[in-house]
Amino acid sequence: MSDEQELGITESKQYNTGEWYAEVVQKAGLANYGPEGMSGFIVTRPRAYALWERVQGFLDGLFKDTGVQNAYFPLFIPESYLEREKEIVEGFDPEVAWVTQAGQEELEERLAVRPTSESIIAPYMSQWVRSHRDLPLRVNQWASVVRWEATETKPFFRTKEFLWQEGHTAHATHEDAWDETMLRLDQYESVYEDLLAIPVLRGAKPDHDKFPGAHTTTTVEALMPDGKSVQAGTSHHLGTGFAEAFDLTYTDEDENTQVAHTTSWGLSWRSLGALIMTHSDDQGLVLPPTVAPEQVVIVPIWQADTQEKVLDYAEEIAEELEDAGVRVELDDRDERNPGFKFNEWELKGVPVRFEIGPNEVDDEVVTAVHRPDGESVELDRENIAEAVFDQFDEVYAKLYAAAEENLESNIREASSRNEILGTIGQHGGYVKAPWCSKESCEEEIKEQIAAEIVMVPLDDEESEIHHGEECAVCGEAAEETAYFAKSY
Amino acid sequence: MSDEQELGITESKQYNTGEWYAEVVQKAGLANYGPEGMSGFIVTRPRAYALWERVQGFLDGLFKDTGVQNAYFPLFIPESYLEREKEIVEGFDPEVAWVTQAGQEELEERLAVRPTSESIIAPYMSQWVRSHRDLPLRVNQWASVVRWEATETKPFFRTKEFLWQEGHTAHATHEDAWDETMLRLDQYESVYEDLLAIPVLRGAKPDHDKFPGAHTTTTVEALMPDGKSVQAGTSHHLGTGFAEAFDLTYTDEDENTQVAHTTSWGLSWRSLGALIMTHSDDQGLVLPPTVAPEQVVIVPIWQADTQEKVLDYAEEIAEELEDAGVRVELDDRDERNPGFKFNEWELKGVPVRFEIGPNEVDDEVVTAVHRPDGESVELDRENIAEAVFDQFDEVYAKLYAAAEENLESNIREASSRNEILGTIGQHGGYVKAPWCSKESCEEEIKEQIAAEIVMVPLDDEESEIHHGEECAVCGEAAEETAYFAKSY
Repeated sequence: MSDEQELGITESKQYNTGEWYAEVVQKAGLANYGPEGMSGFIVTRPRAYALWERVQGFLDGLFKDTGVQNAYFPLFIPESYLEREKEIVEGFDPEVAWVTQAGQEELEERLAVRPTSESIIAPYMSQWVRSHRDLPLRVNQWASVVRWEATETKPFFRTKEFLWQEGHTAHATHEDAWDETMLRLDQYESVYEDLLAIPVLRGAKPDHDKFPGAHTTTTVEALMPDGKSVQAGTSHHLGTGFAEAFDLTYTDEDENTQVAHTTSWGLSWRSLGALIMTHSDDQGLVLPPTVAPEQVVIVPIWQADTQEKVLDYAEEIAEELEDAGVRVELDDRDERNPGFKFNEWELKGVPVRFEIGPNEVDDEVVTAVHRPDGESVELDRENIAEAVFDQFDEVYAKLYAAAEENLESNIREASSRNEILGTIGQHGGYVKAPWCSKESCEEEIKEQIAAEIVMVPLDDEESEIHHGEECAVCGEAAEETAYFAKSY
Repeated sequence: MSDEQELGITESKQYNTGEWYAEVVQKAGLANYGPEGMSGFIVTRPRAYALWERVQGFLDGLFKDTGVQNAYFPLFIPESYLEREKEIVEGFDPEVAWVTQAGQEELEERLAVRPTSESIIAPYMSQWVRSHRDLPLRVNQWASVVRWEATETKPFFRTKEFLWQEGHTAHATHEDAWDETMLRLDQYESVYEDLLAIPVLRGAKPDHDKFPGAHTTTTVEALMPDGKSVQAGTSHHLGTGFAEAFDLTYTDEDENTQVAHTTSWGLSWRSLGALIMTHSDDQGLVLPPTVAPEQVVIVPIWQADTQEKVLDYAEEIAEELEDAGVRVELDDRDERNPGFKFNEWELKGVPVRFEIGPNEVDDEVVTAVHRPDGESVELDRENIAEAVFDQFDEVYAKLYAAAEENLESNIREASSRNEILGTIGQHGGYVKAPWCSKESCEEEIKEQIAAEIVMVPLDDEESEIHHGEECAVCGEAAEETAYFAKSY
């Protein structure tokens, strides 16, 4: 980043959210668009990849603590395997990239670049599982998948290739598979709420919007500042459909053959999109200290006669923080003035800035400034490493509270078709309404305003449909509470 | 693994190394072969993937400590990009898998599934580098690549898709790029010597066997028990060829435009192949404690009347080890006898077995048995967690010493064509010989015995060609010491 003007974000988060987002991604050095001939692909630059590594580390730790083992399956899936589960092939076929030539030859059978791996994982799980003692079997893979969607590219939200993890499990009973589905949904919720400072809603997708072949698809949904919902992680109870298609059976304690119950669950780099979109502002990226590549930047402010004492003091503090495990950057560049440095590190999303001038040295203090709101706090030099962790907690709490406020103030109710349309049209956000469970009633809303049912609360978690309520769209008996929203 | 007979390795490491290796890989649960229509691909099962995670963690730590940032680049490379560096396209074209159809359409331009990523990384590096202040630039990606080779599949050694890391750097000078090349070679050496208990040789590939377009290709080579050499990691000084092809330039301190000097370096899951092949035996997998998924297995040995006290004692010890950070498994299965358990855990490569019976409980000791050689040691119950780390060091040292003995006793010298052929034919291993640097002299050996020059020592590390020595093959003036060997 060589020129001052490149640091400025010119678009407005409030008025041009899409353009603003693209500008933040580019200027904060998070991603570039793919090469010519490969629209829809992006290059994930180190600053964004470092965020992905923190999501990975957090989630992988949760997985390993709860019985998941990582594995790696081939990148390609033979067409005949993809076709063995009819709904999978219908669901994904239009989006598949096909390898047809390899090593100078035409292949006899086309190979799909994996759009998701159920079709290649299930047959191996079926080899590995023989008896009830081999269950539950839980494998996960961190990989990229390709889905050739024609929509406009939005880094981390909509790309033809994306990074994700996909977990696949097999269980003896429907109930065990359901518990697994919920456990992973809980862990996805934790990624958002405990790591990324984003509150989420949880629920099930309507039947007509389930993963192809699934019994139930559950989701965590995050509300973006432009009023649209993001499907932020999904956990599928696959029932016995996949197990039947791929002969995934086991012998029970009585030596009878039983079909296994399977699940799959995935969280992608869309989580980074939600992170960037939720907290950032017109000065650039804003990150919670949990994931920020640099948690603290120290900007020393000196004149010629104070340079030495300011730098010595700043270096000592940097070292002390580093020893305490803080990710700290001392910006002692001579060729840049403090104002430039403030702007640059704000653009890059460093959550806490330490300003250190001669006064701070004399008073044995540090001026700490919070990125999200510019709040400035004077911290004692003594115990600075302890104090900075409190500052991190404060910054995290502020970010979470702002996102929570946005979410809570944007869940509204409606009891008629026009009210749904009007409320979403005016405010965006979620509109809760009684729903008869028929796709046609969602279609009516979708056609008018491009909003859909992003979730219905899970049976045991919310039960608001009182006896006798009517579907807000058709007036027939309501069976569920639908959350309508525009979505990414 | 349900049946007793499945535990036995039937092939012999000494007499049928290839078949023995395949059997260990399969029976220790490390990998399965790919599906029909996808020969050459493998499924990496959790026990092997866990080994890969340890290699990753170790190497990624070294990288991050030395200025490398991870990133992620698209899986596909447009054909026109691949063609921009002439030697790359000639070197890899015969092995490329091509995506020609996607989302129901024929693509206008074929997309290569990356065989290596120089051609897509260099153009982005050229966008990111403007001035000398942006150098050095170092990015690394952990990913899989596809090379459609027609040779026989050998899990982790020869597969059409493999996992690796590829690092790519740009520097201001030739010397800086050389230092980088050597730094990464040092780190690869460390993976083998400090993590995998495998001594390696280091050197350069002959000019005619360099990475396409490279200035120098350096390599670490490991000797396998069947006398063949494995190229275990490579680090390339790419000179300015790639930078010129992709406009990777920078302005120096005098504002003049200069071409950057680049490097690339990669280590793949072949390291797992070398690991498995080197240490394992006719009882199955042998692993050093540094990477073993379970470092200690506790096998309690009880009769009905001693079961409770033996299990209580074993559980206490398991807990204490776990608290000390030891990866420990207590095998308290009721339905298996100790002998079965011994065999199973030996097959799986657990480096230290604790045997605990009533005598051990009474004497407040533990019997520790080393996997590689069956050596048995009595350890005091007190301070058991400290003592076990010493056992790990001993086991590691034994494995390393055995591999070192194999390496050192299999480097021989030869001064004539017939001596090279005879020595490799009889013993395998490396044969050092003076060489004139011409490919034709290597070809003569290759044609007769399928051995090649796997490396020449680096200039500053070994210099054995005395004035006046003659090429062992053609008799002309020798310029280098060539290490001939059969190789994987």
